[in-house]
Amino acid sequence: MIEYRTAGESHGRGFVVILSGIPAGLKLKASDIDFYLSRRQTGYGRGARMKKIERDSVKIISGVRWGETIGSPLGFFIKNKDWENWGSIMSEAAEARDENFMMTKPRPGHADLAGAIKYFRDDLRDVLERASARETVARVAAGAVCVRLLETLSVKIHSFTKEIAGIRARAIKLDYDDVVRRTANSAVRCLDEETGEKMKRAIDEAAASGDTVGGVFTVVVWGLPPGFGSYESWSSRLDGRIARALMAIPSVKGVEFGRGFAASRLPGSKVHDRIFYDKEKGFFRKSNNAGGIEGGVSNGMPIIVRAAMKPISSLKKPMETIDLKTKKPVGGQIVRSDVCAVPSAGVIGEAVVAVEIASALTEKIGGDSMADLMANYRNYLERIKDYWKGK
Amino acid sequence: MIEYRTAGESHGRGFVVILSGIPAGLKLKASDIDFYLSRRQTGYGRGARMKKIERDSVKIISGVRWGETIGSPLGFFIKNKDWENWGSIMSEAAEARDENFMMTKPRPGHADLAGAIKYFRDDLRDVLERASARETVARVAAGAVCVRLLETLSVKIHSFTKEIAGIRARAIKLDYDDVVRRTANSAVRCLDEETGEKMKRAIDEAAASGDTVGGVFTVVVWGLPPGFGSYESWSSRLDGRIARALMAIPSVKGVEFGRGFAASRLPGSKVHDRIFYDKEKGFFRKSNNAGGIEGGVSNGMPIIVRAAMKPISSLKKPMETIDLKTKKPVGGQIVRSDVCAVPSAGVIGEAVVAVEIASALTEKIGGDSMADLMANYRNYLERIKDYWKGK
Amino acid sequence: MIEYRTAGESHGRGFVVILSGIPAGLKLKASDIDFYLSRRQTGYGRGARMKKIERDSVKIISGVRWGETIGSPLGFFIKNKDWENWGSIMSEAAEARDENFMMTKPRPGHADLAGAIKYFRDDLRDVLERASARETVARVAAGAVCVRLLETLSVKIHSFTKEIAGIRARAIKLDYDDVVRRTANSAVRCLDEETGEKMKRAIDEAAASGDTVGGVFTVVVWGLPPGFGSYESWSSRLDGRIARALMAIPSVKGVEFGRGFAASRLPGSKVHDRIFYDKEKGFFRKSNNAGGIEGGVSNGMPIIVRAAMKPISSLKKPMETIDLKTKKPVGGQIVRSDVCAVPSAGVIGEAVVAVEIASALTEKIGGDSMADLMANYRNYLERIKDYWKGK
Amino acid sequence: MIEYRTAGESHGRGFVVILSGIPAGLKLKASDIDFYLSRRQTGYGRGARMKKIERDSVKIISGVRWGETIGSPLGFFIKNKDWENWGSIMSEAAEARDENFMMTKPRPGHADLAGAIKYFRDDLRDVLERASARETVARVAAGAVCVRLLETLSVKIHSFTKEIAGIRARAIKLDYDDVVRRTANSAVRCLDEETGEKMKRAIDEAAASGDTVGGVFTVVVWGLPPGFGSYESWSSRLDGRIARALMAIPSVKGVEFGRGFAASRLPGSKVHDRIFYDKEKGFFRKSNNAGGIEGGVSNGMPIIVRAAMKPISSLKKPMETIDLKTKKPVGGQIVRSDVCAVPSAGVIGEAVVAVEIASALTEKIGGDSMADLMANYRNYLERIKDYWKGK
Repeated sequence: MIEYRTAGESHGRGFVVILSGIPAGLKLKASDIDFYLSRRQTGYGRGARMKKIERDSVKIISGVRWGETIGSPLGFFIKNKDWENWGSIMSEAAEARDENFMMTKPRPGHADLAGAIKYFRDDLRDVLERASARETVARVAAGAVCVRLLETLSVKIHSFTKEIAGIRARAIKLDYDDVVRRTANSAVRCLDEETGEKMKRAIDEAAASGDTVGGVFTVVVWGLPPGFGSYESWSSRLDGRIARALMAIPSVKGVEFGRGFAASRLPGSKVHDRIFYDKEKGFFRKSNNAGGIEGGVSNGMPIIVRAAMKPISSLKKPMETIDLKTKKPVGGQIVRSDVCAVPSAGVIGEAVVAVEIASALTEKIGGDSMADLMANYRNYLERIKDYWKGK
Repeated sequence: MIEYRTAGESHGRGFVVILSGIPAGLKLKASDIDFYLSRRQTGYGRGARMKKIERDSVKIISGVRWGETIGSPLGFFIKNKDWENWGSIMSEAAEARDENFMMTKPRPGHADLAGAIKYFRDDLRDVLERASARETVARVAAGAVCVRLLETLSVKIHSFTKEIAGIRARAIKLDYDDVVRRTANSAVRCLDEETGEKMKRAIDEAAASGDTVGGVFTVVVWGLPPGFGSYESWSSRLDGRIARALMAIPSVKGVEFGRGFAASRLPGSKVHDRIFYDKEKGFFRKSNNAGGIEGGVSNGMPIIVRAAMKPISSLKKPMETIDLKTKKPVGGQIVRSDVCAVPSAGVIGEAVVAVEIASALTEKIGGDSMADLMANYRNYLERIKDYWKGK
Repeated sequence: MIEYRTAGESHGRGFVVILSGIPAGLKLKASDIDFYLSRRQTGYGRGARMKKIERDSVKIISGVRWGETIGSPLGFFIKNKDWENWGSIMSEAAEARDENFMMTKPRPGHADLAGAIKYFRDDLRDVLERASARETVARVAAGAVCVRLLETLSVKIHSFTKEIAGIRARAIKLDYDDVVRRTANSAVRCLDEETGEKMKRAIDEAAASGDTVGGVFTVVVWGLPPGFGSYESWSSRLDGRIARALMAIPSVKGVEFGRGFAASRLPGSKVHDRIFYDKEKGFFRKSNNAGGIEGGVSNGMPIIVRAAMKPISSLKKPMETIDLKTKKPVGGQIVRSDVCAVPSAGVIGEAVVAVEIASALTEKIGGDSMADLMANYRNYLERIKDYWKGK
Repeated sequence: MIEYRTAGESHGRGFVVILSGIPAGLKLKASDIDFYLSRRQTGYGRGARMKKIERDSVKIISGVRWGETIGSPLGFFIKNKDWENWGSIMSEAAEARDENFMMTKPRPGHADLAGAIKYFRDDLRDVLERASARETVARVAAGAVCVRLLETLSVKIHSFTKEIAGIRARAIKLDYDDVVRRTANSAVRCLDEETGEKMKRAIDEAAASGDTVGGVFTVVVWGLPPGFGSYESWSSRLDGRIARALMAIPSVKGVEFGRGFAASRLPGSKVHDRIFYDKEKGFFRKSNNAGGIEGGVSNGMPIIVRAAMKPISSLKKPMETIDLKTKKPVGGQIVRSDVCAVPSAGVIGEAVVAVEIASALTEKIGGDSMADLMANYRNYLERIKDYWKGK
């Protein structure tokens, strides 16, 4: 089972990640991870802080030696580049406590108020430092390793921006190489250029009015064979596991597979993906309304899942709130000034989906080393070759 | 931590449930559970089998004595009423094997094909018996106990049908007693009678054309204080946990909290719920676009979550598929003939959400006995009373 | 991952077991399990109740069809044969409450007092019904399936009585067939007949004086290849997992691997098992002081683990205690009258060790079906054949 | 639930620890942890490397601010002081690979051989770096926090050396302050000075002959109320959980509670701890043969658990083994040269037991903040005060 834990705060020293369950013998370089960290940081609509300060890079603490994993847990450290500037505010020392630095204005849309109540904190910083979306840098580091693992089995994963501020991209055929190329060429990671331009204008307008916008991103997994995840128990369903991982990304408020909510409005005869057979292709479908999962199990079609992200909760023109100390109405504290994080969230989505897929894969296939894993995987592909040929 | 496991097959002897983590001293009767089981079985659009054969009732095997829980795991058995009629088809004995009874036509929309590949089965019955939505009877039994537990703390939960076949109910104020009353009076569990009638007509039309319809149900939790669930790690977020539980209900393809997907289309200033204060009410909101969860933590507002259900996958006019043995195109096997399961799915939704809430509650509050739990809970309410008064 | 849960009380309706993670396609009959249940019930030193009333047999509720597992969770029910006689005492109904039947004399050595305090119960029966060693019948049912699974890979497991009342059996070479034969021929499951007779006399003497005796049993696993369990994290070590499972058997107070405590008294040069090589055998050892586990990983030698069992806590001449209600000194309640349970505990030990081994095995080898599991297992044996040949 | 994960290798950059579940508001300083790290490093019988190079200290990465925990996971980094000297040998870069540095002589008693087979490594360093007992520095860091947490509830924990090389300390009354004082004054952490001197001589003799010695340490927990852990399921038993944690310490081969193995040799009437009552003391015992746990639940007496440690596996005069490449007999590689690690292991034992106790405590008592935890704990003590007064 592949699992990861993270620790770290937004303006603390940095983030640590412990990722366990990766087989020994996977080729891995820090730059493989850094590539994903940089993808997470791009995207039209990010504020100045994001662009200037936080060029993230991972330091591999453990688990990799001479270019490959060795079976130990992978330990990562990702430094917060501007930690030094936060000095006493984020100090662990009791002496550093300074009431002048305390934040007492809970921001609507954030964990601030609920977190302060839960953990009995009088300084909201104790809450927002961990609840911050900055923590996703650690998830992406873990996910990048899982992406590498999946790649060795020709399972590929990528995301794109489906909607921003209600502006929806046209549906096109989802070919992996094409999706990679198109998103790389778009500042909003949109597949169609024209809509991408509209999305940028919507972001510009929101920025001009001190507001923020949200949107929808899609994550696609290509090349996953049928049989991953299980209907055996509610908790082993692949759709449930992926839904949890995506919903746990800050600001995500909705998740849907395949046709999703739209499928609930169509008759059954228009929704379920008919089954066909062909000697070249094995069993196949001409549609993928299920989004690649039936009964909680991958069915061999691409997995297609979308997540809806609410607009960023920190607005330049702060929303009304109540000061915790004075109990008087005030404007919420301004912490950062991004306008739109959807393009970045798609990359985070890839990462967390990759973890779930890789975890389901190692559970099913087994193998403590890549050599064993590959041999077992080939066994499985051979065994099911009448049904699925990966095409 | 509250956890449950289920075992059982759709046409086997029945289902067993093991539910652990329920404090000792909770008053519980089998009829409390049976009430939920019967609610799961009602709803316009269910076929004849559902209505005639399966009047479910639970047998409490363990964990309850002299009217209350005693700290042991709760063990339940729910008999399949028509098991006797299935005789050798579902027999555990090797001698019962009979190729004439084997099912080889995988149904689109079901786990049939993916499951057969995964578990290397040549009889699809080995798959569909467990993947069947019948298994949710066991989830509802576990959930009914959690509902009882939450009730003792005045945390209430109920669901209603929001949409069927694209026909959407009007939004009304969500008051618990009112929701209970309205759903009880509606064969489709819809809050507004007029729309309810339209939904029924849509079901009738689908039935007439041998088709099926899906829809959307809403689950609401009233009275949960702020502070349940955590942003501490991705896996402890309450929204992620609930999303997983709902997405794991058969046929659910989408989940959203509060404004959900719609929130992604609005500017931030229209989405985040402003914070107000009043001596009588403490901190409060006038809107609940977040659906009661911010940063993965309950914020004291009702939790509102919706799930989209695709149309039932077993159609009276079966969809094209391929026979596993002959590899020739055929119509899929017909197994049952419900037309719409959305009203029932709402009850299942209540159950699985109740488990997640009760689990988060016992983790936070502790207490091996109801007396301890109540005392700790009162402690907490007292500690946070400046912020939240449950109104 | 193989996991199981149990529910049930000693004098309730019976026990339910849910066992998940068993691959599809394992041949299984109820009689395979019943065989283990009957082995658990034998043994010199059991009281009349054990012999007459409780001839246990399992009812397979789910997970097995036409003679083999199908990938669903296995659900078992084991009836308590004399439940009917317990009527209102164990009733779930509130009306059945009758203070005359309440037990208020906590027995030293049992969970009675601590459990009543923990769960806030005034009737000790609410505690002892679940804390009873009777619950191990459910563990043995789960373990029996794992034994079957391991057998198909030629991994074998058996136990024997090493000591009773301080009378220790001579050490002999531990050959599987020989151990099976010798234990089957001994009422105390001792490998050497002479010591076996002495053990029986010790039991007789204890019985005559109204006392009880304990002892030590050994569990051996033959044929497990190197590489199961891991030093990767503290919680994945095979020795830790097995220790937990054995220590969790009621009355077990000590666990040791290989030379165990005695190894702590020897110099290192006399303890560590030198490594040799031979073309026929691969890498091998001439000694097995480590008990088959080095660094938390199986090393290819038989796993040898011993557990120490304190004497049964229910004595015919009850030990002094305090009545919960009166707070006056009394004799503890007498519940049953076994004198020695060590032979039976060995069988329970086999079962719980089998679960841990099977779980480590499926985690490492993967495979949702027996065919896949076997193929992967053969891959592994082939890959390591220069090191280990199973001899 | 309190949980921790570690990553790191013996000669890598260092170790990271992620500890989750610690309530907010616990006062904590890095020096609290460093104190435990230094206790782990002391003890007669450690080699030169231990004394000179590795003066460990923790860097708190996250989870503590202004002198107290804030509810986030605690992240620690413990640097390996001599990492710089290991340069390319431990480098993550593929280019650093150098066959000259490869270790191919598996050491008896270590994970070397089994680990290399499992993870398919040709360089034993890939195994021993993680399997090394050095990793326990990370466990001690996590444990030190749990010790602090327990202290705030007046639950205290300490260990001492019971045996070295078969030389056993006399039994004395186990008073916390006395145990702390005596162990602090003994280079072998033995409670009685005379035996301590004999132990040192045994270590000296082993050192002189190039050999190593093992022993037994005892961990005691004072002040834990009854009711922690549960007989509810096999996996929730406190004794099982502690046994697992102790058995998972490298070189531990046996664990026993209370009288342990010796109890298995006595009649029941001499083993079970009679129950007495006194207005001042509540229910109490005059003996503690159970070691503070009955039926898997703490019973209010001190928890007493012993662990047997085999002699250190790296001997100065290396034991015979086989070179992986040449398949020829050789002497095992010498990696370090400690003679006895029992005193240090006791400190590790305290740490891992503290984690289990703290985890059981937070599960039972609940509370996300220390204020809530303390209030709930007082509730519980008040509720059980007729039974247990902590004396």
